[in-house]
Amino acid sequence: MTGASGVGKDTIRHAALPDIENLFFSISATTRTKREGEVHGKQYYFHSKEDFEEMLANDGLLEHAEYVGDYYGTPSKPVLEALARGQDVLLELELVGARKVKEKMPEAIMIFIAPPTLSELERRLRSRGTDSEEKIQKRLSRAREEIKAVKEFNYVVVNDLLTRAVRDFKSIIYAERVKSKYIEPQDIARFLKEL
Amino acid sequence: MTGASGVGKDTIRHAALPDIENLFFSISATTRTKREGEVHGKQYYFHSKEDFEEMLANDGLLEHAEYVGDYYGTPSKPVLEALARGQDVLLELELVGARKVKEKMPEAIMIFIAPPTLSELERRLRSRGTDSEEKIQKRLSRAREEIKAVKEFNYVVVNDLLTRAVRDFKSIIYAERVKSKYIEPQDIARFLKEL
Repeated sequence: MTGASGVGKDTIRHAALPDIENLFFSISATTRTKREGEVHGKQYYFHSKEDFEEMLANDGLLEHAEYVGDYYGTPSKPVLEALARGQDVLLELELVGARKVKEKMPEAIMIFIAPPTLSELERRLRSRGTDSEEKIQKRLSRAREEIKAVKEFNYVVVNDLLTRAVRDFKSIIYAERVKSKYIEPQDIARFLKEL
Repeated sequence: MTGASGVGKDTIRHAALPDIENLFFSISATTRTKREGEVHGKQYYFHSKEDFEEMLANDGLLEHAEYVGDYYGTPSKPVLEALARGQDVLLELELVGARKVKEKMPEAIMIFIAPPTLSELERRLRSRGTDSEEKIQKRLSRAREEIKAVKEFNYVVVNDLLTRAVRDFKSIIYAERVKSKYIEPQDIARFLKEL
């Protein structure tokens, strides 16, 4: 899932995840400053620039990107382990990172979370009160750029009414899981042999 | 949606439809005998063979098929009118009919409702008590044929646990509606102009 800061990605995720069995949420690593109330290993793995660059050098990240002066990245190991256990993996990524993962894993499903309007996004960013005016402007300009790439995504969930956004987000995961492409010829053969 | 007699298509549909706004269910026309409790214009439009063949001759059917000695078909007019109103249309079709609609309307989404096992399907058909032994055997053999075509469908919902089947069925419709392919360039342009 991708979407501007302030669009409600975390709110949707927290509301949806308890209902969805067998879905692993990948916690990103970042060099950005920990906000009030954030916990290492919960919202993010918070790292120094030096540590992050060491992970990079050791090929320990599935993707990474720089955003508003900070690094964000996805540690590979937990993702690959979850997939090996047969779980689906949910990644929360900036556009650049999402593109990199799609390149490495073309079967990935890309979900874009969109604000109802840009002025509503601006209002949400200001009411959060965590960013400087400069950061808010950078985030808005990034949001404009990301919207232009919306057709690269498989799905677009507009976070206008939260209950509907959560419903649609969950629906995407449930629906993707029952796509016929996951039916194997041996499943059909077993079925036909059974009577 | 397509699936064997007895697989639970009607049960899933009746449970799902009240929750889904803006979805029009197309009532089929048939020449099969009305069962106890069935009403003309509710489960089916019940027609004589002569009437049905007249509709056919007048190009009034989107598709039609013969199944176990009876005609089934989709009257075109209500479907085209619902689409023109901006509604989605749900069709319940035999495999042959589903293929014909997909040919005419390639944007159609095909959903297959599968029984958990063939012996469970047989059990459900017998417990329904509406069909002769010959009809039950014909229905089972048709079910085997349809399963072989399952990869032609976009989605496969296994009706094992009804609540899950209903959830997955609804999810398919909600998810399909938020596919990014429905975003028009002018939607993006309007969004970007707004701030």
